Amino acid sequence: MTIAVDKLKSLMDSHSLSPSLKEYFERCIAFHTYPAPGLLIGVFMVDYAVSLLGATPGEKLYAVSETYKCAPDPLQVILNCTVGNHRLRVIPIGKFAISVNRASTEQFSDGIRVFIDPCKIERYPVIMAWFTNNPSFSQKSDGLALIDEIFRAGRDILSAERILVKVTPKQKWKSGKCPVCGELVPQDMLEQGVCRGCGPLAYYERAGAID
Amino acid sequence: MTIAVDKLKSLMDSHSLSPSLKEYFERCIAFHTYPAPGLLIGVFMVDYAVSLLGATPGEKLYAVSETYKCAPDPLQVILNCTVGNHRLRVIPIGKFAISVNRASTEQFSDGIRVFIDPCKIERYPVIMAWFTNNPSFSQKSDGLALIDEIFRAGRDILSAERILVKVTPKQKWKSGKCPVCGELVPQDMLEQGVCRGCGPLAYYERAGAID
Repeated sequence: MTIAVDKLKSLMDSHSLSPSLKEYFERCIAFHTYPAPGLLIGVFMVDYAVSLLGATPGEKLYAVSETYKCAPDPLQVILNCTVGNHRLRVIPIGKFAISVNRASTEQFSDGIRVFIDPCKIERYPVIMAWFTNNPSFSQKSDGLALIDEIFRAGRDILSAERILVKVTPKQKWKSGKCPVCGELVPQDMLEQGVCRGCGPLAYYERAGAID
Repeated sequence: MTIAVDKLKSLMDSHSLSPSLKEYFERCIAFHTYPAPGLLIGVFMVDYAVSLLGATPGEKLYAVSETYKCAPDPLQVILNCTVGNHRLRVIPIGKFAISVNRASTEQFSDGIRVFIDPCKIERYPVIMAWFTNNPSFSQKSDGLALIDEIFRAGRDILSAERILVKVTPKQKWKSGKCPVCGELVPQDMLEQGVCRGCGPLAYYERAGAID
């Protein structure tokens, strides 16, 4: 997606987006490095979820993204629910949906789930074609129309529901050493005595030590 | 971890960190919301990996974090390898290690892996106690000494190796509808005809629709 910054700003202006939404878009695009359609929709989703929860972005919230595609990034940038601080879980369900909940000392926490509504999306033909990966959609010729339709639609393609999310307490752990690579891992991540990096999750081949 | 911003800055100054490292620390702490020890080590790891790769942070790189703890965030903030733009993979191995590689049209891409070296860490008793989750470590009384030792150690607790990372091409997909929830997902994420959110990856209970 190559779209000039000026063009993007003028599209935002033409749809009378609020200053806070504009600021979210700018920060999310800088983080993600380009204005991916899913990222833009994700910004509307996070903004909607937070407002339904009656929360403010400065509050300590927890989030789930049901897809790896784009949606994790607005949760990270706007809410500081990051992968590394454990306030974001990405669950590989494959749905373009997110949920947001508050911290809780109870077993369950009240949350809001926001998703792309397959009925509502039908009113927006370019979004529909892109979202369903229809061969009729061409990034090159329809990319700008898609962004325009996303800004025009805003929350209008989204639905939301109240949910209860199970609170997962922090687990205790002891350090262990993998006998193959010699590196340290939590003991409960050793499988048959060997770390997953030397076992089922190996993802690289060694090509030389560095002094 | 509650440490005053002033105190943190004076610790950085006392260890003569470079201006670019200081900037990384500030941006990563803001994103992560607090100066977690693993986050600070992660900043040194990313900086080291990128310099060994001979890359610049503005370059389009790909990254792996071998843990969900802290390390994904410096990769996201410094390199813009984010979960949502698919340039970061978090592989749940449980090791405090990262790798960085360039894009490639070949089957494998040259990369650099940086990890906490269990031999080198022995020279830093506070880091050692914290990293191995030793009961002798107390966040309250040792937290500041830990951060001081992390800044003092810098790359001195890290080792690196050259690796080859398999390049995974983008997969083609078709849209499908889950017959239970009615939402859209890629067809290959339906399991026995049902989406994972209505199946094995269910993570919430419904508590009411929102108009």
